[in-house]
Amino acid sequence: MAEKCAINPTREEDYAEWYQQVIKAADMAENSPVRGCMVIKPWGWAIWEFIRDQLDSRIKATGHQNAYFPLFVPLSFLQKEASHVEGFAKECAVVTHVRLEVKDKKLVPAAELEEPLVIRPTSEAVIGEAFSRWISSWRDLPLLINQWANVVRWEMRPRIFIRTSEFLWQEGHTAHATEEEAWKEAKLMLEEYRKLTEEMLAIPVILGSKSPGERFPGAVDTMTFECMTQDRKAIQCGTSHYLGQNFAKAFSIRFNTPQGGTEYAYTTSWGVTTRLIGAMIMAHSDDNGLCLPPKVAPYHVVIIPVLTKEERREEVLAAARKLEKALQQEVFDGKPVRVHVDDKEGRAGEKNWAWIKKGVPIRIEIGAREVDASTCVASLRDSLEKTVIPLGGIASKTPSLLADLQERMFQKALQFRNQHIHTDITTFEQMKAFFTPECEEKPEIHGGFVRAKWCGDTATEDLLKELKVTIRCLPFDQSGTEGKCVITGRPATLDAIFAKSY
Amino acid sequence: MAEKCAINPTREEDYAEWYQQVIKAADMAENSPVRGCMVIKPWGWAIWEFIRDQLDSRIKATGHQNAYFPLFVPLSFLQKEASHVEGFAKECAVVTHVRLEVKDKKLVPAAELEEPLVIRPTSEAVIGEAFSRWISSWRDLPLLINQWANVVRWEMRPRIFIRTSEFLWQEGHTAHATEEEAWKEAKLMLEEYRKLTEEMLAIPVILGSKSPGERFPGAVDTMTFECMTQDRKAIQCGTSHYLGQNFAKAFSIRFNTPQGGTEYAYTTSWGVTTRLIGAMIMAHSDDNGLCLPPKVAPYHVVIIPVLTKEERREEVLAAARKLEKALQQEVFDGKPVRVHVDDKEGRAGEKNWAWIKKGVPIRIEIGAREVDASTCVASLRDSLEKTVIPLGGIASKTPSLLADLQERMFQKALQFRNQHIHTDITTFEQMKAFFTPECEEKPEIHGGFVRAKWCGDTATEDLLKELKVTIRCLPFDQSGTEGKCVITGRPATLDAIFAKSY
Repeated sequence: MAEKCAINPTREEDYAEWYQQVIKAADMAENSPVRGCMVIKPWGWAIWEFIRDQLDSRIKATGHQNAYFPLFVPLSFLQKEASHVEGFAKECAVVTHVRLEVKDKKLVPAAELEEPLVIRPTSEAVIGEAFSRWISSWRDLPLLINQWANVVRWEMRPRIFIRTSEFLWQEGHTAHATEEEAWKEAKLMLEEYRKLTEEMLAIPVILGSKSPGERFPGAVDTMTFECMTQDRKAIQCGTSHYLGQNFAKAFSIRFNTPQGGTEYAYTTSWGVTTRLIGAMIMAHSDDNGLCLPPKVAPYHVVIIPVLTKEERREEVLAAARKLEKALQQEVFDGKPVRVHVDDKEGRAGEKNWAWIKKGVPIRIEIGAREVDASTCVASLRDSLEKTVIPLGGIASKTPSLLADLQERMFQKALQFRNQHIHTDITTFEQMKAFFTPECEEKPEIHGGFVRAKWCGDTATEDLLKELKVTIRCLPFDQSGTEGKCVITGRPATLDAIFAKSY
Repeated sequence: MAEKCAINPTREEDYAEWYQQVIKAADMAENSPVRGCMVIKPWGWAIWEFIRDQLDSRIKATGHQNAYFPLFVPLSFLQKEASHVEGFAKECAVVTHVRLEVKDKKLVPAAELEEPLVIRPTSEAVIGEAFSRWISSWRDLPLLINQWANVVRWEMRPRIFIRTSEFLWQEGHTAHATEEEAWKEAKLMLEEYRKLTEEMLAIPVILGSKSPGERFPGAVDTMTFECMTQDRKAIQCGTSHYLGQNFAKAFSIRFNTPQGGTEYAYTTSWGVTTRLIGAMIMAHSDDNGLCLPPKVAPYHVVIIPVLTKEERREEVLAAARKLEKALQQEVFDGKPVRVHVDDKEGRAGEKNWAWIKKGVPIRIEIGAREVDASTCVASLRDSLEKTVIPLGGIASKTPSLLADLQERMFQKALQFRNQHIHTDITTFEQMKAFFTPECEEKPEIHGGFVRAKWCGDTATEDLLKELKVTIRCLPFDQSGTEGKCVITGRPATLDAIFAKSY
């Protein structure tokens, strides 16, 4: 059935191009002619709004307050934390002029700034400066702030949603009186991210700490949650950093203790971005396009009236409207079911495929035949199988159909990921064979995550670069067993996840 | 009662400084060391969230969809509409480099871009380019898009919320098949803005069209809604532009008509910004600080337990918690009453003043005496008078207290504004006398709006510059009568509003 493959190429044929085509077919977003930037179109934006609102609730429920800080970072601020500026220098967009003038009939920058301004790649510097003014006593702590903002990190190889020069995110920034509290905060927010990603986006993730080579510039520890794509690579879905006193010292964030002394605060920062949408696409979509976990679907149900017989048009439309109303009375995920009647002109078959490509969880067709029989034809996004269901029963069944689909998507992704975590690779030779292109003809073993021992020597991370592999994380569920480092063969107790990544 | 004047200076003493101090005392926002930019602190941000969410609902309810477009505008895009680029050239922040390097131990911009990028001062150019690709047939119209974003217009004289180099806003951009539809759209959104501003922020506004000298660069018509501050100046609260085919021609936004021809679309754009918060502060606040219209108050009610007697502490706190629960059961403006118990350490008197300065509509004190008498002491933000009320009755009374306060604030601002619209000024000499500094010693007549006849000659707008006065708008409620132009004495039928402005 040729029609059953709406995306060209398929995942098998060309995964990277398949990804672009899924986004295009769903009309979610597009690459902008503005280099490295994307336009997020209404279908993509609606998904981001669900993610944003859900995460925003979690951030507020855990005691944080939103605020907003400037887009610009003066160079002098950025320079205060040495490894921080070093980490971001290569991708900073710099504003040098604040006026345009016509010169020789050409529009050129004028009014050069004395101190150039960097567009925030992240806001530790600007917020650190503010915190140093806001905090003076232990009574001011903890200070728990979040902002929703755009940031810019100049990309040479952009990939829509996954890696764009401008992206949207939230960044939490907190300051605490003790090391213990700051650690607890960083871990708490990682756990909130896990819940968001697993429960809402149906993407299973592995939690762990980054190796030193992958740490956020200036952090003591970077914790991450990583998911697996269908081409068995890793995506870093987001990070939560324990910054120790590094930024407090750089920005002079100090507080008077109850005992009358002065101490530097302990800070954290944590963020997730529009990349989550890319991870969701890569985790769930198939060769027919986007598959949306019901909790982030702009429409849970699309009703397609089949209007082939003009004389029965009004009757069919009335039945569709009646079903729409019945569905709106039902509740899924704490809110009314989101339903849309697609009564635009056009053939039902074409509309069906359009909504499949947009990832809508449930499609329902109603035509004159169905009206006569008091039935409808329902189809779920994952199986695409059509089932005839009595009209009277479909609405009340919908919440459980959606909940089951949400759970099924998670379980499917979990099973896929677990199948592709390899624990039987113990030497660098085996790892090389596993990850190098020669093996690409054996897709059953190529790719995936390798879970193996690592000695912790940061110099070994360079060896991985040849394989285009990185340590994704040192997972929190360490086995504690002793073994040999998969790179050096030296005694090692750390468990690490190795993978190619986006 | 010296304590009754919490803001120093008062409005009379120094209005501009009073404004800064109100913001500082409420802990709403601060000037950032990043030139011309502000930090919006949690109390200010919460107010912005209410405005944003309310307006977002209105935008969606009128059929628009949100999307997101790049922060950067290539110079070549900006240049396509000549008057547009001319209008914004003087305030454009320009990115010229995308990397930082260390040179002679100094961090300097590197990797110069071939084509500089402007940070969006507004997005007609970027969105116009996208629309030209998205629209091909009359079936694609109307296209109704909105985005929430930050924009940058470099300011030489920033004033927090009112005029900052970076500000936040929404910008709607729509394309239509006919002139009539586009006009209808631009007017519809102006009306939504009016409702938002009058009903939510309790600020009365005057609707009208801008004179040619004040028009948005590239627009055919700019419609505005203007409010009056307590120093009797005007604030342009927002604008809605009918752009005709100007941008469609510049960006080639064309569509095939049902008749088989090709036509340029008619476009609109409309926006409101964080400036609305500044307008709200200027319209309502008093010499004791911020006064929040209940509909945008982060807390409607703050309960202050008076804990002077340690032995009755638990009892008083329990009564406060019980009242909190009772209040949360009540509904105002369609949502549960927002209530906060301030049980932090500190004197009740100090807390009271802190919440007055933050503009909370209702404060309720409960101490041991009140517990004994089953009463509480309630105080409204406008009168500050304390009233003893039976504890059992206060919760159910709260929604109407809030609704009354909301209405009272609107009526007070309306009365003030109407008192200061002068219709008896008919010559330029009189206008000069009214607006020039010599008159500042007669505050009863100085300042305010002048509603007078205008001949429509754009050259006359330059004469107003000497007086630091502008035509705020040609109000929609034109009288149609004939008279003499207040500037030139020539015959004139247009009614215009003249004022100094922020």
